Amino acid sequence: MKKNIKVNAAILIIGNEILSGRTQDTNTSTLASWLNSIGVKVNEVRVIPDDEKIIINTVNLLRNNYNYVFTTGGIGPTHDDITAESISKAFGLNYEMHKEAFKILKEYYKPGEFNEGRQKMTMMPSKANLILNPTSGAPGFNVENVFCLPGVPSILKSMLGGLKNKIIGGEPIKSFTISLRTVESEIANSLTKVQDDNNDVEIGSYPFFHAGKLGVSIVIRSEDQTKIDKCHSEIRKFITKKNIEIVER
Amino acid sequence: MKKNIKVNAAILIIGNEILSGRTQDTNTSTLASWLNSIGVKVNEVRVIPDDEKIIINTVNLLRNNYNYVFTTGGIGPTHDDITAESISKAFGLNYEMHKEAFKILKEYYKPGEFNEGRQKMTMMPSKANLILNPTSGAPGFNVENVFCLPGVPSILKSMLGGLKNKIIGGEPIKSFTISLRTVESEIANSLTKVQDDNNDVEIGSYPFFHAGKLGVSIVIRSEDQTKIDKCHSEIRKFITKKNIEIVER
Repeated sequence: MKKNIKVNAAILIIGNEILSGRTQDTNTSTLASWLNSIGVKVNEVRVIPDDEKIIINTVNLLRNNYNYVFTTGGIGPTHDDITAESISKAFGLNYEMHKEAFKILKEYYKPGEFNEGRQKMTMMPSKANLILNPTSGAPGFNVENVFCLPGVPSILKSMLGGLKNKIIGGEPIKSFTISLRTVESEIANSLTKVQDDNNDVEIGSYPFFHAGKLGVSIVIRSEDQTKIDKCHSEIRKFITKKNIEIVER
Repeated sequence: MKKNIKVNAAILIIGNEILSGRTQDTNTSTLASWLNSIGVKVNEVRVIPDDEKIIINTVNLLRNNYNYVFTTGGIGPTHDDITAESISKAFGLNYEMHKEAFKILKEYYKPGEFNEGRQKMTMMPSKANLILNPTSGAPGFNVENVFCLPGVPSILKSMLGGLKNKIIGGEPIKSFTISLRTVESEIANSLTKVQDDNNDVEIGSYPFFHAGKLGVSIVIRSEDQTKIDKCHSEIRKFITKKNIEIVER
């Protein structure tokens, strides 16, 4: 049976270090690629500061607008880690010690090392479900459709496996890329025609500069492989006619 | 004379390729670092799809909320480049050929190469001012406080020089980073105290993993160097007391 429902999500990057330009966010790309692969389309990303009021307002807006919200950052032990408390307030829930998280971290650390800072990482909204962390112990959590993940990219990546069974995706979004030795202006009109004739397919055109040469990648995206194939064949026709070289990328 | 006004901005990344995870955005970090250096603080970043209605609504919201808005992406020659037309609609302006941009591109391309696709890049809101492009000819533009830049990172970077005299920044935001061979939980309480005693300074704590070892970078940010120095000296006190090693990063 074919799943036809479209499932969407927003990603909320919480952290002054991204807004200052100090840290290059890579979690958006990691999460978006992974979500696509399980049939969840990311419709919006926001980056906001470590500010309680802004976090509360943004989470409440996004969780009502999208099927899923994924936050990254702000769940560590320091004063600027305010995501868990802010999410509690957004949902009107108590911010309290999560017994299972406490048990996990008590076992994770050596005796005497489970200090106050680390215990802070067990404080969560009262109805939180844990997202296990195989890298560094401290779990993420979700409340309803809001999933809170850490900011450190390697830790976030390691938690996606444990997250998979909590997300119900739609039909995975498939994509096909064809890269050409040309410039965008050369194919703009022909590509517009293909897009106009296939307006439920997403066709993107992206210039690149690789190994000293200019090129354009055309990306065709849809849940339906036959629609992708149809666009691909129409694109092949005009590139053959225009004698444009296809390149590997 | 000291400039005391705080000047803020939002960055609006326009592009399906970022939301799909295919392309890793790096323009946020480039723009945010550069804006910081000229005294403009980025308060919010949004990534949205190539969708006219969403672009119009988001631009109109952001331009009313912030001193400046910087958009990236969607100003090329293909069908998915709809930023200029959407900005025209957001401001209620005509979308028309910009004479100066036309002149620039006509001179830039060889005779016969200034085709329809390339001419599309001269279509802008009627009151647009050009932002010159020393890399690939096609200019960006601004209307009032909304500045539209290309998505290709190397081209965007090359246009910042020409943008500088169009932006009036406040006092540049200074920052100081000290990196420690420790873990966050070890310094969380002491750092909270420093933050509480200096609540108009932004203090961030960022774990890192470098050359096989864990560490924490503390970043102190303020327009006022004396406030940064005060926090730095208080942090030095507790790290000396705790016998924590300072490391180079």
